[in-house]
Amino acid sequence: MRIAVVAPSCTLTRKAADRLEALVRERRDCDVMIHPQCFLVDGHFAGPDEARLAALREVMADPSFDVVWFARGGYGSNRIAEAAAADLPGEARSKLYLGYSDAGFLHAAFHKAGLDVAWGPMPTDFHREAGEAAVNRALDWMVKRDPLALEADLQAPAMAFNLTVLAALLGTVLEPDFSGVDLLIEDVSEHHYRIDRTMFHVTANPNVRKVARLRLGRVGDIPDNDPDFGRDELAIVEEWCARSGIPFGGRADIGHDVLNRVVPFTTRF
Amino acid sequence: MRIAVVAPSCTLTRKAADRLEALVRERRDCDVMIHPQCFLVDGHFAGPDEARLAALREVMADPSFDVVWFARGGYGSNRIAEAAAADLPGEARSKLYLGYSDAGFLHAAFHKAGLDVAWGPMPTDFHREAGEAAVNRALDWMVKRDPLALEADLQAPAMAFNLTVLAALLGTVLEPDFSGVDLLIEDVSEHHYRIDRTMFHVTANPNVRKVARLRLGRVGDIPDNDPDFGRDELAIVEEWCARSGIPFGGRADIGHDVLNRVVPFTTRF
Repeated sequence: MRIAVVAPSCTLTRKAADRLEALVRERRDCDVMIHPQCFLVDGHFAGPDEARLAALREVMADPSFDVVWFARGGYGSNRIAEAAAADLPGEARSKLYLGYSDAGFLHAAFHKAGLDVAWGPMPTDFHREAGEAAVNRALDWMVKRDPLALEADLQAPAMAFNLTVLAALLGTVLEPDFSGVDLLIEDVSEHHYRIDRTMFHVTANPNVRKVARLRLGRVGDIPDNDPDFGRDELAIVEEWCARSGIPFGGRADIGHDVLNRVVPFTTRF
Repeated sequence: MRIAVVAPSCTLTRKAADRLEALVRERRDCDVMIHPQCFLVDGHFAGPDEARLAALREVMADPSFDVVWFARGGYGSNRIAEAAAADLPGEARSKLYLGYSDAGFLHAAFHKAGLDVAWGPMPTDFHREAGEAAVNRALDWMVKRDPLALEADLQAPAMAFNLTVLAALLGTVLEPDFSGVDLLIEDVSEHHYRIDRTMFHVTANPNVRKVARLRLGRVGDIPDNDPDFGRDELAIVEEWCARSGIPFGGRADIGHDVLNRVVPFTTRF
């Protein structure tokens, strides 16, 4: 099991990379190659678009890797997602692509292109307290498809997205077909009024209205609303599901935290 | 010239209302009725959806008003915009509807319904330093269609939107036809990475790609990006216009500030 780590969005820290390499040595069930591109810095991004795209395309085309793991989110994979999914080499089709948050732009593009993608923890989760558990969960899925790594209530086909990322990819060439999907959403660092506005936007979309159900993961680090918004994220999501006729499926076990679980975008479990 | 003020989004302060009434007495060229709904508080909003919608529909149907003026933005008019534009009474069609920022949801819905809408300063602008100049500019447009109030470089048909509001209404029933439009955008309190992500979303939209040109107003109160984003809002907007084939028309004289000018959504000037 050979894993390539690239950073299509923001820069990975050396500290997280060192901890990942140490963990993999300890586990002895996989090898990891952390691409030097992960440490590039170009303003907000882990190198210019061209460098991020080149590193990603390089590991996608390399038959020696079984998994392409996105080092961290942040922002920026949307800028290269369309190009990353174009004219795919055959070698790209026999791999798993794993990450979450901003990586959703790639998940959408790659799933649409027929690749095997999954929502799940990333190397940057070492920066969370007790983050090793999250990183191990992702590795357990990659190495042995450990069912304990999975979100427990998935119905196929499933997809998981950061709500704000999902909103931003609607109407773009990245937008996947949501027909019959168990759609899991979560978010982080968004005010309640923004969550309400984004739910208005997302649930108005005719394609999103075709989901089998929508489930709400955790919404972390919500900044204070001034004045208090008056209802929480659960009430907000329930209301917009009701207004749009989307079946609300309850809570989901994903989020920007160490409990975040794996959601493969497969058609069966 | 009779003006009705309602608050489809957030609550108006008594202070701004008092200053508006004093200014109107001083001007002696118009009357203003500040609807009591403007002072309701329901969490984030100026009263529950039902109260905001009822006040808006009441003044729309009242033949004694020539103008419906949105008291302030914030967030929330999207929650009532579709209902506000449905089954319009004839009296609603002989009025001007004016405001900016969150009012863009109503602008889109009302313009689509054939009503006469315009982007322009609001009563809440009294809270800005030297804000009376902005409020007077809006009144000069309402009362005498003063051409000095207009954004100076408009080409018909024109529309103006807060960028984040524009993004949120795409794909909803509120989305207007952008064919041939001189589209002015501005934003406030958004990080550069968010502006970049929103421009990705907006310029991917096939309808938006039909604009005659896109022009960038001012982007105020941009929070610090950590790390520095590496390019400013002008470079961001120029890049996404270039990537999407949208003609970039340069800067526009609108924004969340006292210099904000009027942009009527008319087909000729």
